[in-house]
Amino acid sequence: MKRLIYADNAATTQLDKNAFEAMQPFLLNEYGNASQPYSFSRAAKNAIRNSRETIARCIGASPEEILFTSGGTESDNWVIKGSAFYDEKKQETITSSIEHHAILRACEDIERIGYPVTYLSTDPSGTVQPEELSEKISSKTRLVSVMLANNEIGSIQDIAALAEISHLAGALFHTDAVQAVGHIKVDVDALGVDMLSASAHKFNGPKGIGFLYLRKGTPLRSYISGGAQESGMRAGTENVASIVGMAEALQKNVAGLEDTEIYLDKLEKKLLNVLHSGNIDFVRNGSKNHLPGNISLSFRNMDGEALLHRLDLLGICVSTGSACDSQNTQISHVLQAIGLDEVYAKGTIRISLSKYNTESDVQEIANALLRILR
Amino acid sequence: MKRLIYADNAATTQLDKNAFEAMQPFLLNEYGNASQPYSFSRAAKNAIRNSRETIARCIGASPEEILFTSGGTESDNWVIKGSAFYDEKKQETITSSIEHHAILRACEDIERIGYPVTYLSTDPSGTVQPEELSEKISSKTRLVSVMLANNEIGSIQDIAALAEISHLAGALFHTDAVQAVGHIKVDVDALGVDMLSASAHKFNGPKGIGFLYLRKGTPLRSYISGGAQESGMRAGTENVASIVGMAEALQKNVAGLEDTEIYLDKLEKKLLNVLHSGNIDFVRNGSKNHLPGNISLSFRNMDGEALLHRLDLLGICVSTGSACDSQNTQISHVLQAIGLDEVYAKGTIRISLSKYNTESDVQEIANALLRILR
Repeated sequence: MKRLIYADNAATTQLDKNAFEAMQPFLLNEYGNASQPYSFSRAAKNAIRNSRETIARCIGASPEEILFTSGGTESDNWVIKGSAFYDEKKQETITSSIEHHAILRACEDIERIGYPVTYLSTDPSGTVQPEELSEKISSKTRLVSVMLANNEIGSIQDIAALAEISHLAGALFHTDAVQAVGHIKVDVDALGVDMLSASAHKFNGPKGIGFLYLRKGTPLRSYISGGAQESGMRAGTENVASIVGMAEALQKNVAGLEDTEIYLDKLEKKLLNVLHSGNIDFVRNGSKNHLPGNISLSFRNMDGEALLHRLDLLGICVSTGSACDSQNTQISHVLQAIGLDEVYAKGTIRISLSKYNTESDVQEIANALLRILR
Repeated sequence: MKRLIYADNAATTQLDKNAFEAMQPFLLNEYGNASQPYSFSRAAKNAIRNSRETIARCIGASPEEILFTSGGTESDNWVIKGSAFYDEKKQETITSSIEHHAILRACEDIERIGYPVTYLSTDPSGTVQPEELSEKISSKTRLVSVMLANNEIGSIQDIAALAEISHLAGALFHTDAVQAVGHIKVDVDALGVDMLSASAHKFNGPKGIGFLYLRKGTPLRSYISGGAQESGMRAGTENVASIVGMAEALQKNVAGLEDTEIYLDKLEKKLLNVLHSGNIDFVRNGSKNHLPGNISLSFRNMDGEALLHRLDLLGICVSTGSACDSQNTQISHVLQAIGLDEVYAKGTIRISLSKYNTESDVQEIANALLRILR
């Protein structure tokens, strides 16, 4: 079998081995429904409680502020749509033009039924300017939602400033932190957010599980209603094994956060050095303040899709920054928002490294790119 | 360790061993994001396609009519709320008074924003009368949603008749089949339904995964929006391992359906015979046409909660048919709907058997009840 170099960790990550081991008992013997009162369910109940505490600790929250969902997309939809109806005098949502589709499509859904949405622009580094929020926010603004870190180009936003402006204007503040949690330090009080979305499979947890941080006292309606699970806020039989796996993975990632950051910074520099030394015409997208290991590169007069497939043949997994149908290369909404010249934008790939990548992985990726591009 | 007699299979079931084995590769090595175009994701993509085909085959549907969700509760919320806005001339939903809370609370959510809901009654066996639907349905009815089998008392509804009446009146028909799929024969064409909800953990699949059957051409909006997964109908990174586990479990249960039904019928008879021979004053709830192994018993002048705890001390897991707070015993909405006398209703437990239960389990449960009740 060909060696695999997985460099698409912003798309999904490998499940942590300890997380898998922590899940196993709840997939096998401890299958009790966590909401039932008999002793057999006690192990499941305790595991959920412990997981909630662990996750809360990782982001500086209280356990009762952590609500389990099926992932980041559900959390995002919940916030945008679950808060839509709470105050008819405050119908406006403000978000940014570089949000994940989970936010953008949810915003389209509420626009369709008459709730206005305002989209903030970004500078060429993909950074939302707090001044623009100050100008656009009003007493009619119900919610401001800006992502903590961008999935395509890694730019990290000044969430604390944006949240403060929002609160001063009487609006709630949410951040989609799906790409950030487990990768950079996240503290809900330092950020000043009311709500925060996260997804386990982005930080070496299992797929199909995530959470919403909901600050105590924040008005939000249940989005998936039914049973009394999650304090009546999110119905459905608890996904015990996945909750346990998520907590274990997050705890481990957060414990190694600083080391990983230093390590990925080194890998990143190595990759860029090799490319620079090869006299390749490219730009690196995103801001100076970016997610560790998230490297969006735009190569002049290249086709990102073709690059992806050439790398795939060499066993290297990366993403494109553009979606291709059989007729046209479409430049992603993020690359459009940062105003990247089409000559570069079409030739964009995203390399996203993780703690599991080695120096030799990076050397091979760089060598492969040089061979393809020269 | 005390021997466990798990007789609460309507609450959740043990994960099938083959299902776990089928999941393992996708929890460990095949972690690729199924929506990515590189070869590493091919295994995940193929597994999802195969699982979709398997599930479709099990209920007589086409693969593209199966949409994966996080479970039955999400599927139910999706149907009720995702169809609410599609035709403002048809604002009414009709459902039954014995639905699961996933339907009832979702209905309350749309009532709160002005969409009327009509609740059908049932006869004492917990069966909805098609005549009542005929009387109440009108050209303003958008959707009729009646469960295939009731979770508390096991009664199976005449879905084919109800669906036909709905279609003649120009309404869509949905059935919450969470308790039925994998337990009785379910064929979407024989039932004539447009939509059907199911949940894996009710048929020996993993928790946190389910599906919605959506008949081709049925108008329904996406409820969790974002990425283009599930033909643009349900966003979020695919939960590959759980999808695979669900398909494996369903396939296996469906293959053994008739044998299981005969086996559970035998266990059920045994249990009831022992109780009858003990001269206990009780009624068995539900209709003649009921879910195999679902046995709701109401004991005169007893307290269901107390019974549950006494059985728990003996290592036997069952449910109550009533929810208790420290002050009052609340009789469940289902037992109220069937008009069960309070003298019995308060003393209700649900024993739900599965293929994993043995004759000796049933003997022990019956003996335990006799000891407690006499």
